[in-house]
Amino acid sequence: MDLTATTATLATTTAQVAALLPGRVPNPVLGGVLLTADAHGVVLAGSDREHGLRLTRTALVHAEGRALVAAKPLAETLRALDADQVRLVVEGPRLAVRTPTARFALPLLDTDAHPGVPAPPPVTGSVRGEAWRRAVLAVAPTASRDGTLPIFTGLRLWAEGDRLVLLATDRYRMAMAELPWRPEPNASRLDLLAPAGVLADVAKQVGRGETVALHADPDRVGLTWATDSFSTALLAMPFPDDRARRLLESVVAGTADVDADTVAAAVRRAAPYGGPHGTVTLAAADGELRVRGNDPQAGESEETVKATVSGHHGTTVYQARYLLDALRPFAGRSVRMGFQEGLRPTVLTAGPDEDEVDLTYLVVPMRPPGE
Amino acid sequence: MDLTATTATLATTTAQVAALLPGRVPNPVLGGVLLTADAHGVVLAGSDREHGLRLTRTALVHAEGRALVAAKPLAETLRALDADQVRLVVEGPRLAVRTPTARFALPLLDTDAHPGVPAPPPVTGSVRGEAWRRAVLAVAPTASRDGTLPIFTGLRLWAEGDRLVLLATDRYRMAMAELPWRPEPNASRLDLLAPAGVLADVAKQVGRGETVALHADPDRVGLTWATDSFSTALLAMPFPDDRARRLLESVVAGTADVDADTVAAAVRRAAPYGGPHGTVTLAAADGELRVRGNDPQAGESEETVKATVSGHHGTTVYQARYLLDALRPFAGRSVRMGFQEGLRPTVLTAGPDEDEVDLTYLVVPMRPPGE
Repeated sequence: MDLTATTATLATTTAQVAALLPGRVPNPVLGGVLLTADAHGVVLAGSDREHGLRLTRTALVHAEGRALVAAKPLAETLRALDADQVRLVVEGPRLAVRTPTARFALPLLDTDAHPGVPAPPPVTGSVRGEAWRRAVLAVAPTASRDGTLPIFTGLRLWAEGDRLVLLATDRYRMAMAELPWRPEPNASRLDLLAPAGVLADVAKQVGRGETVALHADPDRVGLTWATDSFSTALLAMPFPDDRARRLLESVVAGTADVDADTVAAAVRRAAPYGGPHGTVTLAAADGELRVRGNDPQAGESEETVKATVSGHHGTTVYQARYLLDALRPFAGRSVRMGFQEGLRPTVLTAGPDEDEVDLTYLVVPMRPPGE
Repeated sequence: MDLTATTATLATTTAQVAALLPGRVPNPVLGGVLLTADAHGVVLAGSDREHGLRLTRTALVHAEGRALVAAKPLAETLRALDADQVRLVVEGPRLAVRTPTARFALPLLDTDAHPGVPAPPPVTGSVRGEAWRRAVLAVAPTASRDGTLPIFTGLRLWAEGDRLVLLATDRYRMAMAELPWRPEPNASRLDLLAPAGVLADVAKQVGRGETVALHADPDRVGLTWATDSFSTALLAMPFPDDRARRLLESVVAGTADVDADTVAAAVRRAAPYGGPHGTVTLAAADGELRVRGNDPQAGESEETVKATVSGHHGTTVYQARYLLDALRPFAGRSVRMGFQEGLRPTVLTAGPDEDEVDLTYLVVPMRPPGE
């Protein structure tokens, strides 16, 4: 294998493969990036058996062939180069990374020992890249990172006619997004539970203008966009769908329409006064929402944010960081906060955005201190 | 006390006081910022008995007075505000931080329990702000951070006629800077050992155009600039001056004149190939310096950097991070590397810069692997 390519492109692509692979693997081959050069360019691929990523890039190929090297060191070396173009060439037991003034030689790993990167399952439909990106990045952070309850680390994904629905919850918050969906004719209906964290990482790679095809079979979910593809093993169902649906059946006692960024800034300022549990209090009043903190040591805070308030004027206590997480996907927009009685969740909505992504976020209040 | 001031100025100043104070103090009063408002403005001061900082800022004072509150929470609250102006007013047992829409109330600490901020000792001379800043920030990082050998955490500082000399070493590297010095008539000669870390932190606060006066007595060193002052307790002498002087008596066998940034970039790229001890090799050749890494696992690297080489063409092994530390103060300039025989240190020099700071950096090579 012998090729010349744009350094920045190869560096980014190799880093994307490296990021997908686990940090320390008992078998070094699984931490490798598999480079395949042919007349069409170069494919960079990686798989730790669970996930698989395959990215095709333009390259001037002097000699076709394959090479497997440790992904992270290659990514680090490429990222540090200041030459615009770089040559990757197999030299004996090494992959040489060459610029006019430098040579870095990385030991080749055994390509035959690599499990290969599985091809994505059949297509079930497609979404627009930017809508997918926004929806996944809004919903996925709500999933739990705690692997001891794997179903809560999942992103629930299903199609309903021409809408695709994404849902995640860690039991304290829940996020749901709907976006336009073009089902593939005669494909089976999409309905699955996928690992949220890796879907969010991959969603960041998808360009705004691209179309993302979703692929699924009973074992795996896949994505293809532009010249790239990704797939991963599904999580085992069942997801607590009924419980999630019940949470969404809200009885809102009062609402406040506020600028999401303004409330978030006030909550951030109140958080240091959040006391031992890091709580802030929202109190709805005429034309305003009051954000309060109170801590026996640090002191007190109160800030007033303009709001359009209607219905019941109540007081609700939240974990500050959960409330900030809930407001973040609405950044730059006005958000409607729907307050329910007691410890029933507060519902944040804003209607469809310019990408037709419709987001609903639920955050469970805390019992007020002293109750 | 009741005053109005520019939020950004108060936020920066309070953060500077907070940064000087230790993170956790058994006595909370020592973590406090003492605010004193009078007709001239507001003085923000802090002291943990060892260090003392006193910063005077413009303020519209509605009522004179004093207040002591925890420095870090006040700094955090001020930094997070988005109002241009902020009012600080004592309200009962609280210092209230007020903007048109918000109020934060921090508990007052007992001013009488605060040790006060010592006044700086007598003036011994002065330097230009930018030269001081550059010299301290170049030399201080070479001091050890390991408090078990306190003398190596010090910055040695002495005057020789119209030159001020700064020197620090952790025994593996040594940095020395000379800069123009205006001695105070009839003052005793400056010669002391001060804690390097805090001098570097304070040097960052000094403006380019300001004059810095140095103050000293047998116990403390002080700095005054613009409307601000700082002082700290000295470290106990003796510093190993003779040993330092012997190190500086170099017998250079060969030199290479190179662009400091270019060599540093090559060393950074070679570092991942630096093997178990993180070493890189420099080899002088005709018109170039070769930067090499070699690691049984990661592979090898070699990069060529243009250089003007004269004298003996040798090969020297360094700890990559020490070599990078040595090159950093010469950023943006050509540096002369003087190589000595065996394990005698390599001497980096560049002549006086535009601020007339003349820097000499010594870095001790490592024994080549396998010797």
